[in-house]
Amino acid sequence: MSSIMRAVTVKPPGGLADLAIGTIPRPSPRADQLLVKVAFAGLNRADTLQRSGAYPPPADAPATMGLEVSGEVVEIGAEAQGKGFKVGDNVCGLVGGGGYAEYCAINIGNVLQIPRGFSLEQAAAIPEVFMTAYQALIHISQLKKGEDALIHAGASGVGTAAIQLAKSWGARRIIVTAGTDAKCAFTKSLGATHAINYKTTDWKSEVLAITEKRGVDVIIDFVAGSYFNSNLEALAVDGRMTILALLGGPVVEKATIGHFLRKRLRVEGSTLRSRSKEYQAQLAELIRRDCIPKFESGELRPVIDTVYAFEDIAKGHQHLEEDKSLGKVLLRL
Amino acid sequence: MSSIMRAVTVKPPGGLADLAIGTIPRPSPRADQLLVKVAFAGLNRADTLQRSGAYPPPADAPATMGLEVSGEVVEIGAEAQGKGFKVGDNVCGLVGGGGYAEYCAINIGNVLQIPRGFSLEQAAAIPEVFMTAYQALIHISQLKKGEDALIHAGASGVGTAAIQLAKSWGARRIIVTAGTDAKCAFTKSLGATHAINYKTTDWKSEVLAITEKRGVDVIIDFVAGSYFNSNLEALAVDGRMTILALLGGPVVEKATIGHFLRKRLRVEGSTLRSRSKEYQAQLAELIRRDCIPKFESGELRPVIDTVYAFEDIAKGHQHLEEDKSLGKVLLRL
Repeated sequence: MSSIMRAVTVKPPGGLADLAIGTIPRPSPRADQLLVKVAFAGLNRADTLQRSGAYPPPADAPATMGLEVSGEVVEIGAEAQGKGFKVGDNVCGLVGGGGYAEYCAINIGNVLQIPRGFSLEQAAAIPEVFMTAYQALIHISQLKKGEDALIHAGASGVGTAAIQLAKSWGARRIIVTAGTDAKCAFTKSLGATHAINYKTTDWKSEVLAITEKRGVDVIIDFVAGSYFNSNLEALAVDGRMTILALLGGPVVEKATIGHFLRKRLRVEGSTLRSRSKEYQAQLAELIRRDCIPKFESGELRPVIDTVYAFEDIAKGHQHLEEDKSLGKVLLRL
Repeated sequence: MSSIMRAVTVKPPGGLADLAIGTIPRPSPRADQLLVKVAFAGLNRADTLQRSGAYPPPADAPATMGLEVSGEVVEIGAEAQGKGFKVGDNVCGLVGGGGYAEYCAINIGNVLQIPRGFSLEQAAAIPEVFMTAYQALIHISQLKKGEDALIHAGASGVGTAAIQLAKSWGARRIIVTAGTDAKCAFTKSLGATHAINYKTTDWKSEVLAITEKRGVDVIIDFVAGSYFNSNLEALAVDGRMTILALLGGPVVEKATIGHFLRKRLRVEGSTLRSRSKEYQAQLAELIRRDCIPKFESGELRPVIDTVYAFEDIAKGHQHLEEDKSLGKVLLRL
């Protein structure tokens, strides 16, 4: 194989017009990695933030964007031998970066098998959103059967995964917020029992009305700042909230933290990319155990909005930034 | 036995002068309770708040103050038979209220045996503070061996228990805040590795200096409002904070919640009294398993500041409210 490959190049901070296909050295897998010939890469908001300079990649990650891929195994590191995968296998998985390229190295602990009957395109839409949603809803917030959940940004990639996981784990009410009536209708088709258009409705009052003033047991939040107090009010006694992003800013004017004590609330911030290799591998193991069988039975499904050709990466980023997508946006290599 | 008994009576809101010894009906134990002839009752800040009208007791609790007692079993409810205790046994335990009285009913799940070699006076100083500190530090915040802990109000009853538990669980640095140099010295005698007088020192800067800017893994907080932002800054990556009281108020001006995401923080509010019977019983079981043997070996010890005679209850409340106590204040019946 050639020692160079095609990849999306951009030097942050960059705009859409700076997204170009260039060539960079082909990565060699570390001893504990597989090298994958990328078929599809998932696009994530973290990528657009990285491009614009707002989210520098971790020091040990490739500078190229892209946090998840599907493709064919072409090389196996020494320590990754005999761990269930061979050259020629189709796989998908979470990567620390470098997904927008012809070849990408994946830590062996992060590699997921392709669910039976799934295409590489479908498989590329699984890792980031299902690992993030599973981590937030099940692993951290510990949603239990019969509980009520509030999932903000319900039509986002993570939102669509969280709705399905909540349904599959036996949530009673699955309340979703989204920014258009079309998104609201879409989330209901995935299993949301109530969808609130936050642009036309006071979602907090609506959540309290739906739950007969009790509040919800679990919240998955991406907004933080401007939603924080309303989220605390919308939580029930013993409620748990996982914050996954700061889209509403990192500061709350007059935070009403008395709720923490009065309702025994738990709030946790979490990200996936910054976690240790061991943590990510443990989470991938839970996905293999708890989710892959449900993909194969049809109980869970990745939701794909649009697939862009490699050369159309700028259109893909624009699509994400316009906040109109219903589910995942992918890149076909 | 007479069907009436002596008890501290006060109609909230009441001041120190309203604390009087009167007579009320002697309680009958429910089927799942023991009746104890009280030898000692522990005084808690929750009692002084209840007296002043700021903390109404739960609906199903006795109106009389007092959340923990030691004494002799005099009667056993039908369902509490055969659960390890007989009439004449000395016991201690957490109660929902009613401790400031000659007789008090305890849920069988909350009853703790008296550690071998302990007096009833020593035993009365165990339940509330060790259950609260264990719950916050070990059960909720999950302090692990080698981690660093910050314990606010280190000379308080809960603080003195938390310091000893942190040491016993293998914490590396046990950093304490307290309001006088005498209190600071006292906490060091219990195992604190660093004690900060918050009245003369900026505790947050000091904690960051002590931990070489890394921050602490666990914080036990009683202040909330005015400490919230500094606590978030003083937490390390993956740090956990349990908030046990709102002494600094329920509102934070400009709360810097970006730390939740950047450091993957977890913050939980907790109280013991409001918890279900089942939760309290589960916690008592952990105390029986993890702490009673350590009391008997001398590794843990209840810290008693002063014991007041029953008739001197007003002095006891005054002592607590002056915030000068080092450890527990008890009432002798």
